[in-house]
Amino acid sequence: MTIDVVVGDIRPGDSRAKRAAAERHQRLTKPPGSLGRLEDLSLQLAGIFGTDRPTVQGATVIVAAADHGVAAQGVTGYPQAVTAQMVRNFLAGGAAISVMARSRGVDLVIVDAGVATPLPAHPDLQVVAPGRGTRDITQGPAMTRSQAEACLRAGVALSTAAAERGAAIIGMGDMGIGNTTSASAITAAVTGASPTQTTGRGTGRTDSELAHKIACVERALDVNHPDPIDGLEVLAKVGGFEIGVLAGVVLGGALAGRAVVLDGFVSGTAGLIAHRCCPTVRDYLIAGHLSAEPGHRIALEHMQLQPLLDLGMRLGEGTGALLAAGLVEVAAACLTEMATFDEAGVSDREPD
Amino acid sequence: MTIDVVVGDIRPGDSRAKRAAAERHQRLTKPPGSLGRLEDLSLQLAGIFGTDRPTVQGATVIVAAADHGVAAQGVTGYPQAVTAQMVRNFLAGGAAISVMARSRGVDLVIVDAGVATPLPAHPDLQVVAPGRGTRDITQGPAMTRSQAEACLRAGVALSTAAAERGAAIIGMGDMGIGNTTSASAITAAVTGASPTQTTGRGTGRTDSELAHKIACVERALDVNHPDPIDGLEVLAKVGGFEIGVLAGVVLGGALAGRAVVLDGFVSGTAGLIAHRCCPTVRDYLIAGHLSAEPGHRIALEHMQLQPLLDLGMRLGEGTGALLAAGLVEVAAACLTEMATFDEAGVSDREPD
Repeated sequence: MTIDVVVGDIRPGDSRAKRAAAERHQRLTKPPGSLGRLEDLSLQLAGIFGTDRPTVQGATVIVAAADHGVAAQGVTGYPQAVTAQMVRNFLAGGAAISVMARSRGVDLVIVDAGVATPLPAHPDLQVVAPGRGTRDITQGPAMTRSQAEACLRAGVALSTAAAERGAAIIGMGDMGIGNTTSASAITAAVTGASPTQTTGRGTGRTDSELAHKIACVERALDVNHPDPIDGLEVLAKVGGFEIGVLAGVVLGGALAGRAVVLDGFVSGTAGLIAHRCCPTVRDYLIAGHLSAEPGHRIALEHMQLQPLLDLGMRLGEGTGALLAAGLVEVAAACLTEMATFDEAGVSDREPD
Repeated sequence: MTIDVVVGDIRPGDSRAKRAAAERHQRLTKPPGSLGRLEDLSLQLAGIFGTDRPTVQGATVIVAAADHGVAAQGVTGYPQAVTAQMVRNFLAGGAAISVMARSRGVDLVIVDAGVATPLPAHPDLQVVAPGRGTRDITQGPAMTRSQAEACLRAGVALSTAAAERGAAIIGMGDMGIGNTTSASAITAAVTGASPTQTTGRGTGRTDSELAHKIACVERALDVNHPDPIDGLEVLAKVGGFEIGVLAGVVLGGALAGRAVVLDGFVSGTAGLIAHRCCPTVRDYLIAGHLSAEPGHRIALEHMQLQPLLDLGMRLGEGTGALLAAGLVEVAAACLTEMATFDEAGVSDREPD
């Protein structure tokens, strides 16, 4: 399926189901609005699943890993080999996302979207890499347009498969040494914010490391000047393979009619790319958490998304998305399963 | 066991285990600090459970319900009968807390701590009521000192029993028409903030309802002038039976060495009472969420607690505590189960 066909087939959320859910909330045994953000979220879920009593159970988090040529510029605290090492750690169950998935009963899908160091085959590793790491974005485009399209198509297929296996919620996460540099460039390109605003320390430590990273983002934009209207071009010029795959995951999740939960800064930029390709994905997008990386807030505000959690996390891997998935399930369960005043024999207050 | 004995037996968190956990976090496969608030929380859990690799699984939420004489002053939007009706709704599984407990696999304990309307016996309802609702705090003390002590002892017993059944986490929730008025009075009495600051709309709607509620809180404090140093006296004079039981739940949870998760504004004031009785409970207290009621922030700041969730919820029932319990389990699991750099063969970055 081409991306144009995917984009054409994504339908807006069901506004009638959303209105019916809002009416139902007025009759449930609680003061109106007292579940706060969970009520808004449940209305969105009604729209996504097309009913005022949606069943939203089961989450899959898709974690895509890839390497970035820009790591050669010294924008990060860790050696590039860590990307592959962390993928092995995901598969062995020792990473934060692995531990959280076990603790919460969430399915993980680990994806090699373009890791530089060869990885041994593993039954739980999906390989969709269109190359072994992007080229250095301070020197030219990260990838070709056809590689960018391949990333999106791979992501669509991953979401489609997760939905077919029964996931109501599709979360996402990233791993890639150097990828916050790419995320800062995408955020600046798409939103028009300056690299100074969109670039944070990532894993770097000193002020001079940060200044150097900002300079690299500026150079990447100067060298490539991506057209901000064209999501695929932004991805090809300053993106990353895992970011492209995750943008495809967003498109595929929306196409399958599932709740799509973004993780932090890097997956937020996958959201930006998908949103540029198809603004309707907004109806399916849920911001799992607010990353401590400053560019994340800018990316979310651009899509008018409010994060559910704000725990000062900045790890990626899907950790924020995974934690938020539980809130998504609960929000739907309250809407669907709570008793109404009539059913429970509870007195409502006098109307105004 | 008298409350004095309970208070005397509560031990501070284990600072050695906490330090060992902080060192362990530096060796886990993630950038230091990248799990944000979950890392701080895991250190607290190490202190509570006395090991740098705590196992923290299984939560019980204790929901205490009682009526308030002050409801006769028209401080609330709902009739008093709703307290008993909602207890029946809890037991029938139709309330928000019931739905969330099913969704998350959390044990609920429903407690009649002093509901005015007689409730039929039910196998899942624990009755510890020292009376059928408090007296009107605008006219005199809510309860006798011996009733206040009975509430605390009942709460200690509930936590002890939950701990014996295997709960690592003890959460709490409240139900009681009129109880935010009592919570506003307690918060003002203990923290010294003015009733204007500590009083919110609760379930009320208009500005004049709010002004009347503030006047009631002022009158309750004028009539009773509780000694802010004496937690038991504050409880007896302007408290509520469910607030007293929940204060006992805090003391009992700390005594049993469990993680104690506060819910919103009302359970926050139970925390204040327990904290006045025994400041060491602070080592065991976790603020589950920030309620939309303005007094809650004042109560939490007084105990120097930072809430985990901020979802604009203001329902009580333990809903915020229950959602936060999942984060508590995950925080401990990451500390205990994540691989170290050495174990996973992941390269750490160069030291500074």
